[in-house]
Amino acid sequence: MKIQGIPRRSIEIVPGDRTVRILDQTVLPHEIEWRELASLEAVLEAIKVMRVRGAPLIGATAAYGYFFALRDDAGDTTVKTAYDQLLATRPTAVNLRWALDRVRRVVASLAPADRAEAGALGEEDVRTNHAIGAHGLELFRAVAARKAPGSGPLQIMTHCNAGWLGCVDWGTAISPIYQAHDAGMDVHVWVSETRPRGQGASLTAWELGQHAVPHTLIVDNEAGHLAQRGLVDLMIVGADRVSARGDAANKIGTYLKALAARAHDIPFYVALPVSTIDWNIMDGIEEIPIEQRSGREVTHVIGLAADGRRQEVLITPARTTARNDGFDVTPGGLITGLVTEHGVIAASAEGLAALAAELSWAKA
Amino acid sequence: MKIQGIPRRSIEIVPGDRTVRILDQTVLPHEIEWRELASLEAVLEAIKVMRVRGAPLIGATAAYGYFFALRDDAGDTTVKTAYDQLLATRPTAVNLRWALDRVRRVVASLAPADRAEAGALGEEDVRTNHAIGAHGLELFRAVAARKAPGSGPLQIMTHCNAGWLGCVDWGTAISPIYQAHDAGMDVHVWVSETRPRGQGASLTAWELGQHAVPHTLIVDNEAGHLAQRGLVDLMIVGADRVSARGDAANKIGTYLKALAARAHDIPFYVALPVSTIDWNIMDGIEEIPIEQRSGREVTHVIGLAADGRRQEVLITPARTTARNDGFDVTPGGLITGLVTEHGVIAASAEGLAALAAELSWAKA
Repeated sequence: MKIQGIPRRSIEIVPGDRTVRILDQTVLPHEIEWRELASLEAVLEAIKVMRVRGAPLIGATAAYGYFFALRDDAGDTTVKTAYDQLLATRPTAVNLRWALDRVRRVVASLAPADRAEAGALGEEDVRTNHAIGAHGLELFRAVAARKAPGSGPLQIMTHCNAGWLGCVDWGTAISPIYQAHDAGMDVHVWVSETRPRGQGASLTAWELGQHAVPHTLIVDNEAGHLAQRGLVDLMIVGADRVSARGDAANKIGTYLKALAARAHDIPFYVALPVSTIDWNIMDGIEEIPIEQRSGREVTHVIGLAADGRRQEVLITPARTTARNDGFDVTPGGLITGLVTEHGVIAASAEGLAALAAELSWAKA
Repeated sequence: MKIQGIPRRSIEIVPGDRTVRILDQTVLPHEIEWRELASLEAVLEAIKVMRVRGAPLIGATAAYGYFFALRDDAGDTTVKTAYDQLLATRPTAVNLRWALDRVRRVVASLAPADRAEAGALGEEDVRTNHAIGAHGLELFRAVAARKAPGSGPLQIMTHCNAGWLGCVDWGTAISPIYQAHDAGMDVHVWVSETRPRGQGASLTAWELGQHAVPHTLIVDNEAGHLAQRGLVDLMIVGADRVSARGDAANKIGTYLKALAARAHDIPFYVALPVSTIDWNIMDGIEEIPIEQRSGREVTHVIGLAADGRRQEVLITPARTTARNDGFDVTPGGLITGLVTEHGVIAASAEGLAALAAELSWAKA
């Protein structure tokens, strides 16, 4: 998608096989800073401090980290250590494991490691997310068709950032929003701030602003009120891991939005590539590990001070401690549909079993 | 309640009839600053910028503002103008109208205006909130008795600040927490940040810390997750206006917590003095006016910078706009009980009619 009118991606290949370039998401929206990553260590750091975030982008970046490690030393110990270190960075995002396994399968047959596989993974992500957007757009059209004529734009609520910044391009939940806007549909997006790290306020608002999609920022607390007042036509969010019965782990706060949607009969969609499905897990609430993050993300906020510099401020008494779960799990029963690159799937064991059958048939 | 070990109130009478003293809640928890208010204009400003906030405290402070205006000029025009100006400061808090009407009734019979009525109102608030706490404590004991032995503290979640800072002393929702803690009960409070203004992070965390009540700060987004994981035994919040069928307007985000409580069979209590009941309104969702506040409260955050100074930072792109509803309305059907100074009332037309009958019987 575009930054100041120029098409960019969240991760870009630098010619040669030494580095990739990422857009540092910890300093957005106040600064646009590209960083080159050239080693496993740099990739580990970038994922841990969330210079790159979003399940698909974590997977794509980790693939390069794996490549860097193997390029420099393709010994068995290096292969295993790199895999384990990358996997440990973010425990909830399952795309990470999927991406690493995929690169590992290729590496097992090639020596030295071939960066092409990491690159192919990024290219595939772009096609996948475009397809998710196309399927989502059909849903948007159906919801819009049920609105009373003259009742204003299609009101879409989203949470966190499931846009192109969280993927390689297009995004998952935001992909259909871009496609609807580009197709001339009248859409308006409620962008939920997404405390503690504020990915809605800092990333989604920025993305949508760069693409001129009409949007309004709200605090996370607004979701119930706007749903109750008839100001939301549909909600759509991304996911970090979806179980084989359709339970979806996503950014903390997603579950509250799903409850509000259910209370007011608002369609609630989760958009994801099928690589986000963890086929080994059925009960997402019991089995998906929830990343515990530092309480400092809750007690402190980073923003732009009046002097134009980024500054961190403490918003609590000095000794206040905080709990910080990175994700919550929305049961499949609250999800209207899973929007994947293979179409819209019921968020149930039956829906996912049918998808699995289709995928294995396609492979066979 | 205590500040650094010394008993204080959120609003204090300065000897003589010239001024009252308030604790400026816009600079807490980083600075403890008392301000003297000596005129209607000073009171209007303090309420509007939220140096004082919380429905009961707004009422108590407005009563002094009214007194100041009438003391200086008890003409009919002044009386009416002062009443209207004070009433317009915060449209959702109905205690404001109740307090003004009460002072006005006395003023109609006395000249010059007598500050005693404004002072009496503050004293009554203290007794009222202590009684709310005593009734709430009984509920807490009942919930605690149902917990499995050895399952840890009674886990209480609250939202915004319904503590002594929002009243004259004790608080509404926090009053039973103080009384439980003082009685030796093992309690732990989940303090919800309460974006956009962060009254949980800055005021409730501070209050509870000063009183040594165990608590942990969470972002508002955590409520669903903690409820789903069995980490919440009860929720209790305050209210700014309750309709005659029990619908409760309270700080934005309250409704989402009530939905989470219902989804997991967690008792959800609203604590309030009966002056918070608007007997003229039945359908709270349709009829309670919701205050619209500046989007700047959403796009900017104030905190303490590393250099020890309070600083405001922008957390969005420069041109992002925000919507900022100050309150939402939780339907009575989601409320387990209304905790008042007259006992615990069903949040229904029947429950409130019975209370009204009791109150008129008591008056007769």
